[in-house]
Parts: sequence; structure tokens; C-alpha cells
Amino acid sequence: MILLVHAHPHPRQSVANRALLDAVRNLPGLTVQSLYDAYPDFDIDPAAERARLDAARLVIWQHPIHWYGAPALLKLWFEEVLSYGYAYGEGGTALHGKDCLWVATTGGPPDWYTPDGPHGHEFSAFAPAVKQTARFCGTNWLPPLVVHAAHHIGADGLAAQGAAYRKRLQDWIDTHG
Amino acid sequence: MILLVHAHPHPRQSVANRALLDAVRNLPGLTVQSLYDAYPDFDIDPAAERARLDAARLVIWQHPIHWYGAPALLKLWFEEVLSYGYAYGEGGTALHGKDCLWVATTGGPPDWYTPDGPHGHEFSAFAPAVKQTARFCGTNWLPPLVVHAAHHIGADGLAAQGAAYRKRLQDWIDTHG
Repeated sequence: MILLVHAHPHPRQSVANRALLDAVRNLPGLTVQSLYDAYPDFDIDPAAERARLDAARLVIWQHPIHWYGAPALLKLWFEEVLSYGYAYGEGGTALHGKDCLWVATTGGPPDWYTPDGPHGHEFSAFAPAVKQTARFCGTNWLPPLVVHAAHHIGADGLAAQGAAYRKRLQDWIDTHG
Repeated sequence: MILLVHAHPHPRQSVANRALLDAVRNLPGLTVQSLYDAYPDFDIDPAAERARLDAARLVIWQHPIHWYGAPALLKLWFEEVLSYGYAYGEGGTALHGKDCLWVATTGGPPDWYTPDGPHGHEFSAFAPAVKQTARFCGTNWLPPLVVHAAHHIGADGLAAQGAAYRKRLQDWIDTHG
């Protein structure tokens, strides 16, 4: 079972994230939970979210990068769902041993994520927060899928990224049944 | 004018952040905007927030670190208030030249933020997101005030940090007032 937690604040404006989602959403055993559809008022149901997590062996966090990290509702999901005693701390072993895949899209031109570019850093400088959130909860951090310059790579580029994404998940399914 | 944007998801449980806030809140020309008091339902008023920003020459973002970054409501504030055409992009110069101070507290023991510790990194590895948010908006990034091990340093330690915080702001007022 794969749980794909999807967080796009403006789904109708989504191009790259939607293309990635559409490339994988019909895979067998994959459940998509789109947070901004489920919780437009930010009133997350932690128990329901934990039940979804409990059923999954692979957890995917898929979102566009906003201000160098996860959109606010996914951040709130981290805070409210991954609680002490559930995801970390005493007795907090619910996610131990699950795989975790981060799928992120960035919008600007490719050279914006450079020390001299507008974002002042390589993209990797912004990865530790999400990665360590996963690791602190005892998951296995898989190599992330980061699609840069999503507004610039065109339909063919997005199709190629979508196909690569689907292949990765299909391989995971084939291995983990 | 100083705008102190304060974000603590559970104000009643706050010890360190409250001590810091209490140390500075009566400084002349300082306005405290506590986001979780103002917007318990996450329904930020961007125009009102921008008016507060416009009046400030120093903007402070003060919060505990949750999952390696800003709490969700402050992240939402970044996304909804610091918009294209206001804080960045074409015509987005509203924050240019303002000073920005990050005041963050962490709870765990001091050695948790080490490569071999539970957080897997030095704390500085998690700083780029907030720092670059400020810089992308054209603010001057002041040296942050980060109080580590806020649950462990005791009342005397917190009082010392509060006094240091107040002195920094008083010095800023004396210079820019």
C-alpha cells in the first residue's frame, strides 16, 4: 500500500504537480490524499490521517516548493499528525520501517538555485527539513524526486518526469508487492 | 517601528518563547502580532498584515522550531502575505531595505542538533529556508537569535537570553529611532 499525501495550495493552477500526480494515480494499491481538497479550512483530522498512514508501507509527500519548503497545510499535517507518542518519542514507532519518498517541484529557472542566483543556495540546502522530519520518525528516506524548473521544461519534459516517477513506484510495487 | 510577528501554536505551553516575548514587548515603538491568537482558524488577513509590515522598519519573526522550521501558521503567513507584486517579483519591493531578525527557540537537549544526534544536522542546516525567505524579499538579514535547549536552560538562562534580546532591540532603536 502506498499513501500519496499531495499538497498543492492552488490545485487549479497546478501544471507540473498535476502531471506528476496523473502519471501515477491509477497505480494499484496507491491512495491519493490531496490535503488542500480534504482540508480547505486547515482542520486536519489527525486520527483519520494516522489510519491512512498505518495502512501504508510507502508514504509519499508530493508538493510544490513554496518559500523553500512544504506548503503550510503539509507543514500543519507534520505538526498535527506526526505527534509525540505516535511518530516519535516514547511509543512513537508507527512509521518505523516505512519508506518515505519526497516528490517536489520548483517553478523558477534552473539557475535560480545557485549561490549567486536569486535563491542564494543550491536546492539541496533546503532539503534537510523534510528529510529529517522523515528520518526522525524512523522511516527509510528514499532518493527524492525533485523536478526543477517545472514551468520551463514543457509538456515533453513533464511527461518524461511523470514516466520516471511511475516507473519508480511500479518498481517499488514489484519489489514490495 | 518594530513589528514582532510571533507564532507559537500552543501559547499556554510556551515557556521560552513567552519569556523572550515578555522581555521585549514593552519596548517603545514595538508592535506584537501573535498569529495564533489573531488567526486561530488560519484565516489570515493579508491586507492587514501588509499594513503592519509597511509601518515597520524592523520585522521580527519569533517562533519555536517545529519540525525543523517555522510553525504552519507562520509558513502560511509567508505564503499569503509575502506575495508576488508585494514582496517580490515585478513591483514587489515593499520590504526592500527593512531589517529582519529571526528569533527561534529549540526544545531538545543541546547535543541533539549534531550530525550524530537525533536531528542529524547542526541547527544551521535548517536555517536557509527562513533566511532566504527574508533575503528574497530584499530585507537585511540580521544575525539571528537562536535559543537552544529552551527546556533545559532554566529560568536564569531564559532571563539572560531575554536580557540579551532586549538589549539588541534597544540598540536597534537607539540607532534607527
